[in-house]
Amino acid sequence: MDTDMKTLLQARQSRLTTSLYKAGLNALILNPGPSLTYLTGLNFHLMERPVIALFIPHNPITFVLPELEAGKTESLPFGAQVFTYGEDPASWLSVFKQAGTATDLNGRKIGVEPGRLRFLELRLLENALPQANFEAAEETLAELRMRKDAREIELMRKAVKMAQDALLNTLESIRPGQTERAVAAELSLQIMRQGSDSELPFSPIVSSGPNSANPHASPSNRMLTPGDLLVIDWGASLHGYFSDLTRTFAIGHVDPELEKIAQIVEQANAAGRQAARPGVAAGEVDQAARTVIDSAGYGEYFIHRTGHGLGREAHEPPYIRAGNDYVLQPGMTFTIEPGIYLPARGGVRIEDDVVITEVGCESLSDLPRGLLTIT
Amino acid sequence: MDTDMKTLLQARQSRLTTSLYKAGLNALILNPGPSLTYLTGLNFHLMERPVIALFIPHNPITFVLPELEAGKTESLPFGAQVFTYGEDPASWLSVFKQAGTATDLNGRKIGVEPGRLRFLELRLLENALPQANFEAAEETLAELRMRKDAREIELMRKAVKMAQDALLNTLESIRPGQTERAVAAELSLQIMRQGSDSELPFSPIVSSGPNSANPHASPSNRMLTPGDLLVIDWGASLHGYFSDLTRTFAIGHVDPELEKIAQIVEQANAAGRQAARPGVAAGEVDQAARTVIDSAGYGEYFIHRTGHGLGREAHEPPYIRAGNDYVLQPGMTFTIEPGIYLPARGGVRIEDDVVITEVGCESLSDLPRGLLTIT
Repeated sequence: MDTDMKTLLQARQSRLTTSLYKAGLNALILNPGPSLTYLTGLNFHLMERPVIALFIPHNPITFVLPELEAGKTESLPFGAQVFTYGEDPASWLSVFKQAGTATDLNGRKIGVEPGRLRFLELRLLENALPQANFEAAEETLAELRMRKDAREIELMRKAVKMAQDALLNTLESIRPGQTERAVAAELSLQIMRQGSDSELPFSPIVSSGPNSANPHASPSNRMLTPGDLLVIDWGASLHGYFSDLTRTFAIGHVDPELEKIAQIVEQANAAGRQAARPGVAAGEVDQAARTVIDSAGYGEYFIHRTGHGLGREAHEPPYIRAGNDYVLQPGMTFTIEPGIYLPARGGVRIEDDVVITEVGCESLSDLPRGLLTIT
Repeated sequence: MDTDMKTLLQARQSRLTTSLYKAGLNALILNPGPSLTYLTGLNFHLMERPVIALFIPHNPITFVLPELEAGKTESLPFGAQVFTYGEDPASWLSVFKQAGTATDLNGRKIGVEPGRLRFLELRLLENALPQANFEAAEETLAELRMRKDAREIELMRKAVKMAQDALLNTLESIRPGQTERAVAAELSLQIMRQGSDSELPFSPIVSSGPNSANPHASPSNRMLTPGDLLVIDWGASLHGYFSDLTRTFAIGHVDPELEKIAQIVEQANAAGRQAARPGVAAGEVDQAARTVIDSAGYGEYFIHRTGHGLGREAHEPPYIRAGNDYVLQPGMTFTIEPGIYLPARGGVRIEDDVVITEVGCESLSDLPRGLLTIT
């Protein structure tokens, strides 16, 4: 591990100490996921064996993990104590109890990551520390990770470029008559070819015609047909940092109303990007995009929030939704992705990845946003 | 959804009813994952929004999910009641409470999937059903899913073939001087090119020289060097069913002891496959492979279990580990993957995917297992 990484991890762990103090928490327990990697530099898979890291301010980090994984905790650039178990699950509890005894956390308040920690680890922890209180610490973790540093933003910028280049290479081959699945397969291939991590942020969405009216459609065997809208929602990953973009296309000549909603969504996307700047609440960005669509008379067809934070997770704070009064700050990265979905007819979504700067908002993505026709 | 699928899902749900009865459970709650997909045919992503399905014998299945996802529960081939919430997380609890009231499960025993259910859903459920008892139901779910039917085995067979063909295409391009990362990227690409689902079972492991002595190494920038062992552990996914294979190669001329351990591991792999048949305990398969390595004097360097179940998860029951007295039955699918790891020198692992038949065990994988030399 290089010196830069050591300094970075120490700074992050030190910020965690402050955050825990502010939140009135005595410790934090993480299982494998982006927060654990962010704080330790270590990657563990979330599998059938429980793995936890226990952070107590001013103490070495305590790990409980399988013997098989113990090698990962050698030569860490910070203090650590490691408890390991063998292949028999019957040994898990006693090892968790040893770790519990060593950390003296009975009666204390311990933060956990509610979207990661599982019943498996929780029950072992409750047994090992019967007097401890486990509390959701999502806000503490969000505060810790939301403001990206220059290195993180650079990785996201590159992940955006990979995704954009992959789409451009895919577009050359898209033709009416191809299935959604075939387009998704070619796009996945092109994303890998750009050098993306093999774990993509998510499987590309390729939805055509009526399917495009479902924001979360899975690619089907439906063939692209003249008159269709075609929504493509895809991303790449670089060293665990994600991009997440959407563009909408027309297959041949489409109904004028579909062209019209594409223009409205493009304006809503621009309004969202324009509204995003330091000191503005996340909900105001949602409102800016939503107002454009509402005013055009399509408010009831914009059926999701305007965006979500993006980084080491495909969805993370801040959430760009109505009523969220969380104030945006420099370094925050999120999507702006308004859409209009006309049931049984088709949908449009235009999604960019942006970063809040000192004075406004920069879009990391710059692919044209207008409705390109594919013939 | 076709009639076959409808029949299949009804049969699975009916088997669940029996399993719950045997386990003394009044209900089962699942969140997104392979078990939910197995029982409902539905795919949900495990994300920041809680999604649950509640199975109560002889009752419609109760879903709690975001409005955005409600479309997926239309036209299900079984009875369902659906509770949805909007974009504000503050509304989650009240919707969970509505669902809780509707299901009348207070005071009952509810099974959960301990490796899936998160603190997020658990706390909402505990609030919605304060008198219910939540219990780990991993054995009930394992019983339900372990014996694969002909259709499932056929998908796994195809996923194995995809993986094998992808490796053969990759091998042509592997040369000394390439980095582990470059080999892994090319292999990922070739897996996708074979038509794998874009969500691979796991990122390929490509580890060379001393790195190959770590069974869970991540591909690094180390260059393949004459004298190295090269371990490649990879898989493909077809409609959510996985393959998971490992082969070991020699880069140029390697130390005779490394050749020797490759032969021992090949014998251990064969012994494991030979021992696997209906009526035999999982631990006996482990023992058969382990005895070969022990007898050759390398027992202390075989540092993991012999295998794990495989199907919709990269690791699932049955686990082929010492002391596991679980009795193998026809239709069970798992890996046999003994290894020897000499610290700082190199490792060998040879992994096949097998299915228990009526009379023995069939390997779905048939790539040569000997040490191929790459020059």
